[in-house]
Amino acid sequence: MKIRRSERLIDMTQFLLSHPRKLVPLTLFAERYSSAKSSISEDLVIIKKTFEDRGIGTLETVPGAAGGVKYISIADNADVLDFVQTLCNRIAEPNRLLPGGYLYLSDLLGEPVTLSQIGKILATKFNKQKIDAIMTVATKGIPIAQAVAEHLNVPFVIVRRDSKVTEGSTVSINYVSGSSKRIEKMELSKRSLPEGSNVVIVDDFMKAGGTINGMKNLLEEFNAKLVGIGVLVESEYAEERLVDDYVSLVKIKNVDVKEKQIEVVEGNYFNYPNQ
Amino acid sequence: MKIRRSERLIDMTQFLLSHPRKLVPLTLFAERYSSAKSSISEDLVIIKKTFEDRGIGTLETVPGAAGGVKYISIADNADVLDFVQTLCNRIAEPNRLLPGGYLYLSDLLGEPVTLSQIGKILATKFNKQKIDAIMTVATKGIPIAQAVAEHLNVPFVIVRRDSKVTEGSTVSINYVSGSSKRIEKMELSKRSLPEGSNVVIVDDFMKAGGTINGMKNLLEEFNAKLVGIGVLVESEYAEERLVDDYVSLVKIKNVDVKEKQIEVVEGNYFNYPNQ
Repeated sequence: MKIRRSERLIDMTQFLLSHPRKLVPLTLFAERYSSAKSSISEDLVIIKKTFEDRGIGTLETVPGAAGGVKYISIADNADVLDFVQTLCNRIAEPNRLLPGGYLYLSDLLGEPVTLSQIGKILATKFNKQKIDAIMTVATKGIPIAQAVAEHLNVPFVIVRRDSKVTEGSTVSINYVSGSSKRIEKMELSKRSLPEGSNVVIVDDFMKAGGTINGMKNLLEEFNAKLVGIGVLVESEYAEERLVDDYVSLVKIKNVDVKEKQIEVVEGNYFNYPNQ
Repeated sequence: MKIRRSERLIDMTQFLLSHPRKLVPLTLFAERYSSAKSSISEDLVIIKKTFEDRGIGTLETVPGAAGGVKYISIADNADVLDFVQTLCNRIAEPNRLLPGGYLYLSDLLGEPVTLSQIGKILATKFNKQKIDAIMTVATKGIPIAQAVAEHLNVPFVIVRRDSKVTEGSTVSINYVSGSSKRIEKMELSKRSLPEGSNVVIVDDFMKAGGTINGMKNLLEEFNAKLVGIGVLVESEYAEERLVDDYVSLVKIKNVDVKEKQIEVVEGNYFNYPNQ
């Protein structure tokens, strides 16, 4: 049965969106819809234009026998600006303030649409790189890692502070927690990350950068290569950070516990080059 | 500028897919594309038919002034069968066997496309219910919760065994870990779950059901209502389970450590009614 163009466009859009960065041979679509490759090519031109016009992303065409088309999820800068400003306002809500000047952020880290936007925005910075895995540390980094991994369509791995019997053999390191200067331990299941992987590290929050620096050290144990670092929130830090090359969405400038005021500004996202 | 139908179909598909169960007024689309509502209605008929034909889901139309259209993500039974069979074969790989007869599953819990399929499949069982939140326990339940939450478009909340300063006040309970019969503690941030919420509990693995039973008890502390329980893997358990009404994708029948054999069959998904 031959499929009409409108139906092809809808199904191809769905298929491409759910498989970012996957090279899809045109023959797959041609067979799926019993259509000529030339018709599929015309469809892809329309989809590419719409994806670009609407800030969804783009399609990359790889020519040749082993070629095909790839959907790349790219956040539109105007959309990012809107999103980051809303995020700043939400994080500045005084009722987020917890004893000790900590901020409650777990609600944001449990909202699927918010997470998907965060994932798309951070993924945009590393889209052009070869990436094999996203790495984060349990617990609060996990939703960010999963969201970024979805948009880059690569696995994510979870570093833990405590070992579990269901992880098998692990590689563990000691690291210096940046702000408290305490020695802590983190470990990663040995089989979760193949040797030589290209890795993006993400986390929900960074202050001195000790935890992220620990993950960088852990990468060395796996002979893995750091591609980049992305955090949702960075916090102002008076001393020298342990990590300097990272991208952040928002920055907490100041927390005044007495006055219940949280000063939040945009992070370095807009000054950080797409890599 | 007026937008052509092909562009509308692509962008509407993208919009609907990224906002499951959200009621979208037709005026939103009419304004977005400077098109007549009658054209939008025609587009939606085409999208609905394609979504249904291709096993993507369906569109529900709510008539009237406060009406609109809702995308419902529904897993196709034939696709689920394929997926579950592949999953059974993967989980039966002998190299997953860890000391003590535990199974390594972390790779599956880090694959975005696999997780999205799991999320869609579990969401399908609870699609018709009013749901306010998904609940799980750290760490390995988190990716499942996030994936289900995406397809139901509701927040997910994370119960923890250890409290953190960034959670604020918590409600904690003691529960009996089913297999080891030890008393353990779990807690949930007080502000993460509004009183009276309708909650779906999910987890990666269930044996005696102690952890899930603990979460059920925790729900009572929040005057929340249990809508349903979904697990990725259930394990055969000789004694009486603490939880009997749940849906599972796969079931581990037997683990023979000596012979390195893992017997995995499909879970109760296909016998569990859509709720």
